[in-house]
Amino acid sequence: FRSKLPNVKTTIFTTVGNLARKHGALDLSQGFPNFDADPLLIELVAQAMKKGHNQYAPMQGYYGLREAITNKIQKLHQRMYDPENEITITVGATQAIFTAITAFVHPGDEVIVLKPAYDCYEPAIELSGGIPVLLQLNNKDFKVDWNAFRSIISPKTRMVIINTPHNPSGAIFSREDMLQLEEILRPTNIILVSDEVYEHIVFDGQEHESASRFDNLASRSFVCASFGKTFHVTGWKMGYCVAPAPLMKEFLKTHQFAVFSVDHPVQRALAEYLRNERNYLGLGGFYQQKRDFFLNRLSSSKFKFTPSHGTYFQLLDFSEVSSESDEALAERLIIDHKLACIPISSFNLDHQDHQLLRFCFAKTEETLESATNILNKL
Amino acid sequence: FRSKLPNVKTTIFTTVGNLARKHGALDLSQGFPNFDADPLLIELVAQAMKKGHNQYAPMQGYYGLREAITNKIQKLHQRMYDPENEITITVGATQAIFTAITAFVHPGDEVIVLKPAYDCYEPAIELSGGIPVLLQLNNKDFKVDWNAFRSIISPKTRMVIINTPHNPSGAIFSREDMLQLEEILRPTNIILVSDEVYEHIVFDGQEHESASRFDNLASRSFVCASFGKTFHVTGWKMGYCVAPAPLMKEFLKTHQFAVFSVDHPVQRALAEYLRNERNYLGLGGFYQQKRDFFLNRLSSSKFKFTPSHGTYFQLLDFSEVSSESDEALAERLIIDHKLACIPISSFNLDHQDHQLLRFCFAKTEETLESATNILNKL
Ligand SMILES: CSCCC(=O)C(=O)O
Ligand SMILES: CSCCC(=O)C(=O)O
Repeated sequence: FRSKLPNVKTTIFTTVGNLARKHGALDLSQGFPNFDADPLLIELVAQAMKKGHNQYAPMQGYYGLREAITNKIQKLHQRMYDPENEITITVGATQAIFTAITAFVHPGDEVIVLKPAYDCYEPAIELSGGIPVLLQLNNKDFKVDWNAFRSIISPKTRMVIINTPHNPSGAIFSREDMLQLEEILRPTNIILVSDEVYEHIVFDGQEHESASRFDNLASRSFVCASFGKTFHVTGWKMGYCVAPAPLMKEFLKTHQFAVFSVDHPVQRALAEYLRNERNYLGLGGFYQQKRDFFLNRLSSSKFKFTPSHGTYFQLLDFSEVSSESDEALAERLIIDHKLACIPISSFNLDHQDHQLLRFCFAKTEETLESATNILNKL
Repeated sequence: FRSKLPNVKTTIFTTVGNLARKHGALDLSQGFPNFDADPLLIELVAQAMKKGHNQYAPMQGYYGLREAITNKIQKLHQRMYDPENEITITVGATQAIFTAITAFVHPGDEVIVLKPAYDCYEPAIELSGGIPVLLQLNNKDFKVDWNAFRSIISPKTRMVIINTPHNPSGAIFSREDMLQLEEILRPTNIILVSDEVYEHIVFDGQEHESASRFDNLASRSFVCASFGKTFHVTGWKMGYCVAPAPLMKEFLKTHQFAVFSVDHPVQRALAEYLRNERNYLGLGGFYQQKRDFFLNRLSSSKFKFTPSHGTYFQLLDFSEVSSESDEALAERLIIDHKLACIPISSFNLDHQDHQLLRFCFAKTEETLESATNILNKL
């Protein structure tokens, strides 16, 4: 057979994760916590199963969960999405993003992706015959150059994908960034996919500026979010997306045949759990403490860094530690030092290596202590 | 925007299900049981969550579950799949089928689909720019005319999709059918997607002839299966597929970006539960009793039928009950008689109406009693 993705390899998260396991390394690579979820949430799933909610959920998702999401977004971003026609529960944000791309990108369409980027966007675009148009972010502060952005928009641009808070850099889009984006997209009919899986993990008193806060952006956007990242249950593969009804109607044509629907008892539990806003509003503070714990312990190391503004990732500049490539150093760290992280050249345009490694700090203090002990000796 | 699926509507299962709910009808439409799963299986999920298996499973699935599947297939079909490279756990069989199509069908490729067929195959083919080539089965016994099948194979044929036991008819492929198929495909490099979600629901002492039993078929096949159908938990959205390593490697390139991985605690539970073969070997007998209960009570009704050979569906011929279209009758049954079923013209080539309705008999005797009471009065 002829491959549709001849250049695609196994995702870096699987490759690095496997190597980490093989060498018994501390794993700060893939983005997941090594502490557990709230026992109440787990108990709610067990109860939903025992109550017999074990058959197909509605195709768009359990209505009660869609309602709870409506309420959350209304409170946080002052926009009212109709739970009937504007919200779909998905197999993590990954499936929401993949399905939005698959449903809207025609062969020959261009899709703008800001690099560095999580590795799932481009293959999805290519599977639909689309053309990823890549713009490299500044490698210091990861800000978008909006003039450069404007210049790559063409009549063929069908979609733009943004990600805020940004994986892997921890940068966040400011209100001004969102207004710039809105101004540029206003005269077009370009669809926006806004990957906001770290929406509740923002630090230092800043605000998460969701695309759903901006009228014109919201009217063209799939805002994609994750329960796994917010509730420490990445393994449950639960997310959702919201979009205006006409866009969502088209999305569902694909969703219904890609997965049909998602885990029913977990949706019941999340609906209940989401009602209490204390279950997610404290998340920024919780992870800020971890970021600070991690960085404070590195203050006299040879690594340089700007503190992450959001997500649970921190980039470390290793230019004074080693002259190796980021991939070579990441591999050596696993094999010789038993510590795993992500070399971010794999996220960059043309695999550019800016001597940056990404560490996930969604870990217990004990793990962060061991990890920083290793890093301090380099 | 321009739709990629201009002719696709909301899946019939959602449309009929919603109408049934609205009118408080007994629901024998979509394929799911109205009795509950084994409490042991539910308990195993709760335990897995409490033990902390709540973060990402490996991309291909939890290894222990892949091993348990290997063992099951080896015992039932005498073929050894490598759990490392030849098995992937998916979000139900639907995601396995969608992903196989998306990963292998190029624009312009032809894919053979036997009609009537479950409605998910054709839109997936069209999303990849492929061309569904449809062959209508005989509307009495739903057998394949292998000469007709042979005649529609062309140099552009990339894939064939089969479904045994067959939804909606309950027909099953015999050993001779499979050997014919194998003979026809032998000189080609056509990929086979074998939808075997009802593999354990076969009646009257017949055998399920999995594609994995036939060397040449197995070498080109994705065999897709469902835990939801087998363990009465359709709402957990859990399935898997097996294929030779080179095919699976290509499949995973898409799978990793379509969903990344699937629910981890449920996979742990299924691995444990699957070890005891009594948890699935009795399923044919269990559902045969339900089929017989349902049909015995219809023996003096005006409906005609051939007993289903497999699946948990039964077709009823209503030609002596009404001259309406199957869709009109199905709608009237819901609204006036509070009983929902699936009109199968929606599964047929050109929407042909053979005056057949599909009933799901995966229901308690009480429900089947009420349903047959309604049908007997027509
Ligand atoms: C599905 S892989 C995980 C994506 C993420 O969490 C990461 O960037 O590590
Ligand atoms: C995912 S819809 C269900 C498919 C099935 O079970 C059916 O044919 O009813």
